[in-house]
Amino acid sequence: MKTTISPAALSAAINAVRTQSPLVHNITNYVVMNNTANALLAIGASPVMAHWVSEMEEMTAIASALVINIGTLDDKWIEGMLAAGKAARRRGIPIVLDPVGVGATGQRTEAAIKIIEECHPTIIRGNASEIMALIDAGVKSKGVDSSASSYDALESAKRLAADTASVVVISGEIDYITNGTDVYTVEGGNPIMTSVTGMGCTSTAIVGAFAAVVSDPMVAAAAGMAVMSLAGEKAAEYSRGNGSMQVNFLDELYNLTSEKL
Amino acid sequence: MKTTISPAALSAAINAVRTQSPLVHNITNYVVMNNTANALLAIGASPVMAHWVSEMEEMTAIASALVINIGTLDDKWIEGMLAAGKAARRRGIPIVLDPVGVGATGQRTEAAIKIIEECHPTIIRGNASEIMALIDAGVKSKGVDSSASSYDALESAKRLAADTASVVVISGEIDYITNGTDVYTVEGGNPIMTSVTGMGCTSTAIVGAFAAVVSDPMVAAAAGMAVMSLAGEKAAEYSRGNGSMQVNFLDELYNLTSEKL
Amino acid sequence: MKTTISPAALSAAINAVRTQSPLVHNITNYVVMNNTANALLAIGASPVMAHWVSEMEEMTAIASALVINIGTLDDKWIEGMLAAGKAARRRGIPIVLDPVGVGATGQRTEAAIKIIEECHPTIIRGNASEIMALIDAGVKSKGVDSSASSYDALESAKRLAADTASVVVISGEIDYITNGTDVYTVEGGNPIMTSVTGMGCTSTAIVGAFAAVVSDPMVAAAAGMAVMSLAGEKAAEYSRGNGSMQVNFLDELYNLTSEKL
Repeated sequence: MKTTISPAALSAAINAVRTQSPLVHNITNYVVMNNTANALLAIGASPVMAHWVSEMEEMTAIASALVINIGTLDDKWIEGMLAAGKAARRRGIPIVLDPVGVGATGQRTEAAIKIIEECHPTIIRGNASEIMALIDAGVKSKGVDSSASSYDALESAKRLAADTASVVVISGEIDYITNGTDVYTVEGGNPIMTSVTGMGCTSTAIVGAFAAVVSDPMVAAAAGMAVMSLAGEKAAEYSRGNGSMQVNFLDELYNLTSEKL
Repeated sequence: MKTTISPAALSAAINAVRTQSPLVHNITNYVVMNNTANALLAIGASPVMAHWVSEMEEMTAIASALVINIGTLDDKWIEGMLAAGKAARRRGIPIVLDPVGVGATGQRTEAAIKIIEECHPTIIRGNASEIMALIDAGVKSKGVDSSASSYDALESAKRLAADTASVVVISGEIDYITNGTDVYTVEGGNPIMTSVTGMGCTSTAIVGAFAAVVSDPMVAAAAGMAVMSLAGEKAAEYSRGNGSMQVNFLDELYNLTSEKL
Repeated sequence: MKTTISPAALSAAINAVRTQSPLVHNITNYVVMNNTANALLAIGASPVMAHWVSEMEEMTAIASALVINIGTLDDKWIEGMLAAGKAARRRGIPIVLDPVGVGATGQRTEAAIKIIEECHPTIIRGNASEIMALIDAGVKSKGVDSSASSYDALESAKRLAADTASVVVISGEIDYITNGTDVYTVEGGNPIMTSVTGMGCTSTAIVGAFAAVVSDPMVAAAAGMAVMSLAGEKAAEYSRGNGSMQVNFLDELYNLTSEKL
């Protein structure tokens, strides 16, 4: 793993998550909930999954970050996302948005844009197709996979960051993290990660944990992506397929300490 | 694993999934979503999970097959299933139905029959109890497990295939695949597979991946069931219980290539 | 593992689950469904997951126990829980309630109390914070984790048991099982279990399997918690992190037989 943030900043971020164990409120998709919760526990955060509109105000009030992932949407869930997002905004806790599959359907694009406009996420993380779809709504994404490279999307990411005042993360072989002006990069991981469902969703949740304890969202996002790459490349060394990779990845995240960097 | 389809047909089917990486749209139950997505990735397909009625038309439009699984039903999900099924039918992409637990409750039977009548699935895959329940609605299934053997259900399967013009698959120690006239069989797997939740659901999704790229649904269904048996028996050799079996099964599926047959 | 129930009672309970393979109906949260189903299969029970209000009456009619877990609530799910709980009550099958995160939001507390009042669960299992929250509704729980020790909550548990005529289980380093008068304990497990999401939910489901076949709910609950501790400490011996722990735990449960005690 190589990253443009300093080893000291990365170490400090990991220590902060491990010592503060922030409560991260996730409204995420059905496919990845178990992995997301385990990944947050592995890194030292405290996950809560809740989507019921009636309890969003109170749930957000005890959380240190909110993660919204639109992977398996419907009307009720969008309501919950908007309620939680607005409450998080009022309370000033960071919001991380994962616009899964945006561009694949008009409703998904509309929902993502509504969440961005009404909740002002601190960080938006997607793959290249998703980030480009948010900018031009013209890219038809092939479901949740990305067909464009992360570099292709960098200009879109910069524009999106400038337009929304969010930090934008494009994940890919090289991850780009930008606020519209500066660009941090993270290189590493392993191609087998793309064969494990929800690895992108996990990275969004991990970024949420870092955003809860690191005040600079550029550093929080880069630290989260760096941790994903590190755990991913270590786990890949001894994984036989995507089944063991999913398990080993959690074990590596669990054993990752700032001393190991 | 022994099957009545030819090794050449099976090899060609595996190669077709691996090279075409078809997008398979799944409306499936909460219990198995993660495994289903990982199994589809392992075999080389591209999964998408989405159930929101508003996006069914568009989502189906980018998919090469639709898998409907009624494991954890409610009114909203049935709406989504019917909308997706009708859209898939209009577009002519294959539909694979898994009537999980049909016969256990009247509502489940009714929902399955409605989906069959309105969407005309290309393939229906169930265990013996489920297939028999679809025919006579008199078998009270014990939840999602099967108490009848697959052979007992073969006559029901033939009648169901003839009545619906679907290919019907009964999974069990021996899997039967029939269009009402011809019968293909697949033998193999391992009993521990019945202790891993959602193995049946996984086989339905895998059959969906094959149906997306193989024009003959009899061959697609047999290839899907053969791949399940193969990966299952290899994984069982070194699995200590249902936990490791779930993981190892994905690894075997991931490493399965036509050369290994 | 140390417990105050006799080895003979524990052995008999394990044998009863393995030989009778009770159907356990679960209305549980999205995060843990897969693990819950696999844990029930591992111990020898037969899981069914269903939440649709229209089929609760019929589903409960074929089940030997009902497990209600409020981890990811909304209005529709509460409706399903109440319908199933009332049907289970009428039929006289045991009900086990897991009041996940009660105290975190007012709606969650309200829902848990409504379920208790209308369905009269046989057994209530929670961590210390949750049990205390049910008694005084004054403890703000930190999401789904417990900040109080299980001993702190013992007096609350006794009062809750007396008020509700339920057996109350507080899980923690030492598990307490009480009917308001008697107290059984289970010691053991391993701290890494708290880093695996849904271990508490799994224990509730396992207690449900025992309640289905053991007439004394004090013994059923203690046997369930004992089995969790046993499998947990064995799995922890060779687990590298929470990923492998989740898998190994299922394997240990799968291989647990009364002879091994």
